Amino acid sequence: MRLVRYLFGGQVYYGAVEGEGVKRITGNPFGEHTVAASNRPLSEVKLLPPVVPGKVIAIALNYKSHLGSRPQPKRVEPFFKTPSCIVGPEDAIILPKDVGRVDAEGELVAVIGKRCRNVAKREDTWDYIMGFTCGNDVSAREWQNGQDKDVQWWRAKSADTFGPIGPWVLTEFDPYNSRVTTRINGQVAQDESTKDLIYSVPEIIMAVSRYITLEPGDIIFTGTPGTTRPLKPGDVVEVDIPGIGVLRNPVQGEA
Amino acid sequence: MRLVRYLFGGQVYYGAVEGEGVKRITGNPFGEHTVAASNRPLSEVKLLPPVVPGKVIAIALNYKSHLGSRPQPKRVEPFFKTPSCIVGPEDAIILPKDVGRVDAEGELVAVIGKRCRNVAKREDTWDYIMGFTCGNDVSAREWQNGQDKDVQWWRAKSADTFGPIGPWVLTEFDPYNSRVTTRINGQVAQDESTKDLIYSVPEIIMAVSRYITLEPGDIIFTGTPGTTRPLKPGDVVEVDIPGIGVLRNPVQGEA
Repeated sequence: MRLVRYLFGGQVYYGAVEGEGVKRITGNPFGEHTVAASNRPLSEVKLLPPVVPGKVIAIALNYKSHLGSRPQPKRVEPFFKTPSCIVGPEDAIILPKDVGRVDAEGELVAVIGKRCRNVAKREDTWDYIMGFTCGNDVSAREWQNGQDKDVQWWRAKSADTFGPIGPWVLTEFDPYNSRVTTRINGQVAQDESTKDLIYSVPEIIMAVSRYITLEPGDIIFTGTPGTTRPLKPGDVVEVDIPGIGVLRNPVQGEA
Repeated sequence: MRLVRYLFGGQVYYGAVEGEGVKRITGNPFGEHTVAASNRPLSEVKLLPPVVPGKVIAIALNYKSHLGSRPQPKRVEPFFKTPSCIVGPEDAIILPKDVGRVDAEGELVAVIGKRCRNVAKREDTWDYIMGFTCGNDVSAREWQNGQDKDVQWWRAKSADTFGPIGPWVLTEFDPYNSRVTTRINGQVAQDESTKDLIYSVPEIIMAVSRYITLEPGDIIFTGTPGTTRPLKPGDVVEVDIPGIGVLRNPVQGEA
């Protein structure tokens, strides 16, 4: 299934995308629900972030190609983005006036489907994953790593609009060897396979759930590959994961 | 008003505490609501965290007495705790097996009552504050600051149960000169006035809302004073803010 949230007639619904249409979901998309028979054209609805996460976890330093001069991490290195930074497909990424350099970071995002804590076996982690979507871990480099950097990555990773996800959650997907391609204005900026992840999706879920309960709708940005590139107002960023789809967001300067 | 959330007969309610009783609130506690006339004894209900925050912000290095050898911060230094770490009064703080030293950090906590972004004037910040409660920013020091510390403060500040708040939100409260006292097993561990905060509550709200939208129910841990002390299983921690009340939590080892 391709799970979406969408706005139609001023109301928010969950839905299942089929072809160029969406079928409304009634009930709990993480539990018992029914999918309507009738199809509304996708062109008539506004897609929203496909889930409303209670918690947004992201993984630092998770591709060798992204480490630069930094040593390989000895363990999974999570950090938090705050849920209010999450936006959906086609929503603008807004660059604060005083932000300095802001980079796109295209990533595979795992969506939790079921509450879990302390998952000890790799094969058990699949029971708790609903599916996968595309994400852009938008990052303000001065605030994150500059000479005068902040103590922690708060605004660097969580300024409003710094967390695009979507366009939908694909529930049948193999995260072990999928291409993640980021394009800025159609030019490839990042392009690597998730087989190069230092810590795989199951390893991340085991490491995080050792200390922190994961809940349905929580999302995990799995890390970004390679060298990232800066954004400027007027740019269009796409994160393309074949099989899932393309997450597209325009970039604007703050008004 | 003293706003609480509580469990009674398997259901969760908001309520207003008066004396030794609680009056049920119907409607939106952040908007239109009614308070019942009848009073249920507090002893018959289980108090929960008084709000369900979508976002938990905490401020690092915000009392001179807590800086030690660290320089005074040049600006407000926020970080995130993840909402799933929040627990209520009398809930156990659970120390993970491999955690090392864990300290209590007693703090005044501000509760947002109204959506805001980019609040530019100190006097306007009061429009967006619902009230104040007590909080304990439980902190695992090895993971936070040890030789082999994590890249970011994720489990150090957000392991399950590391965010007790309560017992209620006091809506009429002057945060500029209130005592914050932390006791471990009845012994005073921290004791200082919020007049010593380096950045005041209005300054924090201006700094955070410059980049991040604040929503009703979001909470801000304002910082901890002095030297903090370690917890061990069997301890009882109290954060006491006169006028608000006492937040009391037992400490347990992980099973």
